[in-house]
Amino acid sequence: VANETGAAGEIVTAALCVIGDEILSGRTKDKNIGYIADHLTTIGIQLKEVRVVPDEEPEIVAAVNALRARYTYVFTTGGIGPTHDDITADAIAKAFGVGIDVDERALTPMKAYFERRGVELTPARLRMARIPFGAELVENSVSIAPGFMLGNVVVMAGIPSIMQVMLDAATKYLKTGRKMLSAALDLHRPEGEIADMFEDLQKRYPDVPMGSYPFIRDGKPGTQLVLRSIDAARLADAEKELKVLLAARGWL
Amino acid sequence: VANETGAAGEIVTAALCVIGDEILSGRTKDKNIGYIADHLTTIGIQLKEVRVVPDEEPEIVAAVNALRARYTYVFTTGGIGPTHDDITADAIAKAFGVGIDVDERALTPMKAYFERRGVELTPARLRMARIPFGAELVENSVSIAPGFMLGNVVVMAGIPSIMQVMLDAATKYLKTGRKMLSAALDLHRPEGEIADMFEDLQKRYPDVPMGSYPFIRDGKPGTQLVLRSIDAARLADAEKELKVLLAARGWL
Repeated sequence: VANETGAAGEIVTAALCVIGDEILSGRTKDKNIGYIADHLTTIGIQLKEVRVVPDEEPEIVAAVNALRARYTYVFTTGGIGPTHDDITADAIAKAFGVGIDVDERALTPMKAYFERRGVELTPARLRMARIPFGAELVENSVSIAPGFMLGNVVVMAGIPSIMQVMLDAATKYLKTGRKMLSAALDLHRPEGEIADMFEDLQKRYPDVPMGSYPFIRDGKPGTQLVLRSIDAARLADAEKELKVLLAARGWL
Repeated sequence: VANETGAAGEIVTAALCVIGDEILSGRTKDKNIGYIADHLTTIGIQLKEVRVVPDEEPEIVAAVNALRARYTYVFTTGGIGPTHDDITADAIAKAFGVGIDVDERALTPMKAYFERRGVELTPARLRMARIPFGAELVENSVSIAPGFMLGNVVVMAGIPSIMQVMLDAATKYLKTGRKMLSAALDLHRPEGEIADMFEDLQKRYPDVPMGSYPFIRDGKPGTQLVLRSIDAARLADAEKELKVLLAARGWL
């Protein structure tokens, strides 16, 4: 399956739903949001919203249904392992109003993999082959038990190394839009000094969203200015004008 | 102001709304979610949901209004600096339907601070003293421009070092509930082996939520088992029983 590229100018959007009490309690620090954000930006899909929800079926169903109605794609991470608190697959089936059962396409490679490693196929492990009816499998080259894609929802594992191979595997199913391009400049000036000039520039380029992100480095305030556009020419024009303004003030 | 402790057995909940295009684009990696999750867990407030939303007023207003109706507290990070893309304070005022203007309580210490450092009070910097009507200030001991608390919504900066002092400053305004206690055990067994036993234990302790979190360490699968309860005695009973079960299998 090759990527279908969105029509010229089409904007493809996505949301991410992180499923896991362990993130909300602070016990586990999320490592997936930033990775997925980078990946989607690179392939031309705009991540517009992230939600972290607990391991509770009504919460997962409500979040996934709200997000899938609103964005081109929804990605989920977490809750597809073998234990009783892994309820994502059932919650997704419920969200779509479809059935769910052990899927031979998932089970056959899992059986072979476990047999090769002398691992018993317990009822718990069998749970990992439960796939909602109508879903495509998303390959897991690390530990075989697959993710899946149902409608516009891509369901992935929470362990970063497994999530990452699933995200790669899922990418071939996704249509991608025009890439959001960006230009960034780090200035060793506090945000408050730059703000008025920067706002004026934004007003002249309403189609090039501009953001400023303050940082503290070696105890001194600095600001990263970021310009974003799907139009390379407009982005280049705005960046050039910004540099002229900064040079005139001796800030470059 | 001293902490008001919630009534015995009261559950105090919170949501976090992270405001920032830079997190969604992947350019900046969030460092606040995990920190805030840890802090709230420690003081007895249960973080139940996180949302990351873009720098767009309707998105911020919708998220904050949905969350503040549902949880005891809402915390926001990001978007309270001096530049045109810092729209959080205005969005919060809009969400509550109240006015907003430069607040003398915020401006006076900022003026003194800037004067001491020979920094000009530009119109952009003046923006940081805009506080919605009726809000309490949340002190910022790092860079003076304050956060604020309006109703049950605590508005903080996005820079981690500033967010952290604001979170400390805000904590004194918060009522806290019973602490969620937890016990964790790391096992060098894959999740699939533990699952059936663990589910049986969960059924015997429905009031002690149990989660299992697989990890890969030195290339080998392991599982962290976590038991949680606000009742120390029930938690201890469940943990003791778990250890007996694990020991019987030679897994401890």
